[in-house]
Amino acid sequence: MGRGRLEAFSDGVIAIIVTIMVLELKVPREATPSVLLTMAPLFLSYVLSFVVVAIMWVNHHHLLHCLDRVDGALLWCNNWLLFCMSLIPFSTALLGSFPRSPTAVGIYAGNLGLTACAFVILRGAVARRDAARLELHLQQRRKNLMSMGLYLSAIPLAYVSVWLSFGIFVLIPLLYFMPERALETVP
Amino acid sequence: MGRGRLEAFSDGVIAIIVTIMVLELKVPREATPSVLLTMAPLFLSYVLSFVVVAIMWVNHHHLLHCLDRVDGALLWCNNWLLFCMSLIPFSTALLGSFPRSPTAVGIYAGNLGLTACAFVILRGAVARRDAARLELHLQQRRKNLMSMGLYLSAIPLAYVSVWLSFGIFVLIPLLYFMPERALETVP
Amino acid sequence: MGRGRLEAFSDGVIAIIVTIMVLELKVPREATPSVLLTMAPLFLSYVLSFVVVAIMWVNHHHLLHCLDRVDGALLWCNNWLLFCMSLIPFSTALLGSFPRSPTAVGIYAGNLGLTACAFVILRGAVARRDAARLELHLQQRRKNLMSMGLYLSAIPLAYVSVWLSFGIFVLIPLLYFMPERALETVP
Amino acid sequence: MGRGRLEAFSDGVIAIIVTIMVLELKVPREATPSVLLTMAPLFLSYVLSFVVVAIMWVNHHHLLHCLDRVDGALLWCNNWLLFCMSLIPFSTALLGSFPRSPTAVGIYAGNLGLTACAFVILRGAVARRDAARLELHLQQRRKNLMSMGLYLSAIPLAYVSVWLSFGIFVLIPLLYFMPERALETVP
Repeated sequence: MGRGRLEAFSDGVIAIIVTIMVLELKVPREATPSVLLTMAPLFLSYVLSFVVVAIMWVNHHHLLHCLDRVDGALLWCNNWLLFCMSLIPFSTALLGSFPRSPTAVGIYAGNLGLTACAFVILRGAVARRDAARLELHLQQRRKNLMSMGLYLSAIPLAYVSVWLSFGIFVLIPLLYFMPERALETVP
Repeated sequence: MGRGRLEAFSDGVIAIIVTIMVLELKVPREATPSVLLTMAPLFLSYVLSFVVVAIMWVNHHHLLHCLDRVDGALLWCNNWLLFCMSLIPFSTALLGSFPRSPTAVGIYAGNLGLTACAFVILRGAVARRDAARLELHLQQRRKNLMSMGLYLSAIPLAYVSVWLSFGIFVLIPLLYFMPERALETVP
Repeated sequence: MGRGRLEAFSDGVIAIIVTIMVLELKVPREATPSVLLTMAPLFLSYVLSFVVVAIMWVNHHHLLHCLDRVDGALLWCNNWLLFCMSLIPFSTALLGSFPRSPTAVGIYAGNLGLTACAFVILRGAVARRDAARLELHLQQRRKNLMSMGLYLSAIPLAYVSVWLSFGIFVLIPLLYFMPERALETVP
Repeated sequence: MGRGRLEAFSDGVIAIIVTIMVLELKVPREATPSVLLTMAPLFLSYVLSFVVVAIMWVNHHHLLHCLDRVDGALLWCNNWLLFCMSLIPFSTALLGSFPRSPTAVGIYAGNLGLTACAFVILRGAVARRDAARLELHLQQRRKNLMSMGLYLSAIPLAYVSVWLSFGIFVLIPLLYFMPERALETVP
């Protein structure tokens, strides 16, 4: 299979994921400032997930760009990543509805940890097919592993204080914010 | 009509189908583990349908890849397939909401059986336009016919025990899991 | 503007329109055959609109295919068509919820009549830029005008009997079913 | 990163935004003319936002068309624009539900003002990478800045009279209606 259609399908799925999250921002009963302020957690969880999914889209692009062709095993690594990402609208809505519940915060952290794990697997699969840039992929994979570890540690930390988990949720996008420059400069 | 725009439209529809299914996972009243556990059937039916639709997408890709041009009859075979697939979010939500109802299980089985039947028709239409790989298409068509038969047999079996039908639902993706390697290796 | 991005955007919008209509098929309170039978009008209106939108997509493709470049005026003819089509999910749900209400039937007929009118306008705009196939476009435009007239006549007829309007709704897809062969065979 | 995939992803997101807005037009309890008339504000706010988003899509296309390649900073300018646009379905539904509330009107104006601001930023980023057409970009940027100023002035004006803000909402699309002809004619 050529890379083009895999990219097109992934782009479609990611574009829909990022956009349907906004459907959770439901019109309130009244349009007063005080009622709208109660929507702040829903809004902030939307902002956070939009940034996370946008970063994933950029990194997904740079990762697939290293390949010329896609085989069956890689296709299913990618489908597994899309599955993990497709759950983000649900866990975002859960986090926005119950921002003080350790269970809700833990599910959000678990979902993003699983997605980071799917990135580690996909990157490993790409690295095996793109030996020329092996060193670069290993370096990026360490970054993926670190964010996976941070997200997974946010699950138990939510039961200590949800603010510790929120700190991790804000920290990781900051680490990732820039796309993988090294891969970008490779022709 | 060139193959490109048909693929793009099909990809768009399939990407949306696979993603809007997650909208059925509604935020519960409480974020406690016991309440979230009651969502397990909805979640499992989502996982099952995600895998089924992903397999269909991969096989749809390999199938259309055999064609250079698309005529009116083939276009409508493809639209019929997309119609059958577009009902999957509804029957998935029905299965997830009433996992012990033979009617709900039967409707899910009927929907997937109808979709398998649409694949048999589309494959027949492709085979007539791609005589060079006739043997290969006939072989794959037997696989499509078998899964159609299995899904249709899951309708009456649901009235004996829904677990028999669930067994069939899990078995078929396992049979299909890998994309059609034979078609993949053809240049 | 090149034709490619206009096609891609139109395909995206049409793919989403055709797919979100299925969201109106909501999971009922019970999964018994009698409760599911009450969903028949919703289901039939979905089938009808799926066929209508699929026909529009095919004809839209053949129409734009005649052009090499797209200017501002044509772009807005196309946006007007997409706007009319974007209302189809709403009027389909209205028709499916109130199949015996002349108002609901009339709104559905009006929406499709408006969409046919947008096709007449778009075809006129394409014909002026594609003089080589003028005769062909004029012939197809007569077909568009006829379906526009039929849809608009279904509005008052709904107040006589909704069945007359339903007859027109079923008749027009049958007339249109095949894509515009004449355009298809033009290289 | 090539321009192609950024365009494809942006198109996907914008196509979904424009289409999911129609989901706010919910089927009413009854299909009588009087009940349907109460939906007029929802419908008119949908029409307004459809036109605004369609204009943005056209201008976004003309803007990106000036670039050959996309770097990290430009990518995030574009993501920021998509984020602002992704909130339009929510503020449209809020405006349609509470058309006489200055808060709802102000939020709609603020959302569109923020989106215009994102256009100003993106245009600045494009201008720095497309020095050959600097004069043209500066001219268009003045237009973007003017609409940003008008939208932001509509926030306090809503507390004087919401009709003043509505006047601004209708005025700006009229100013923008035609795509940026000057850029269009550049080869």
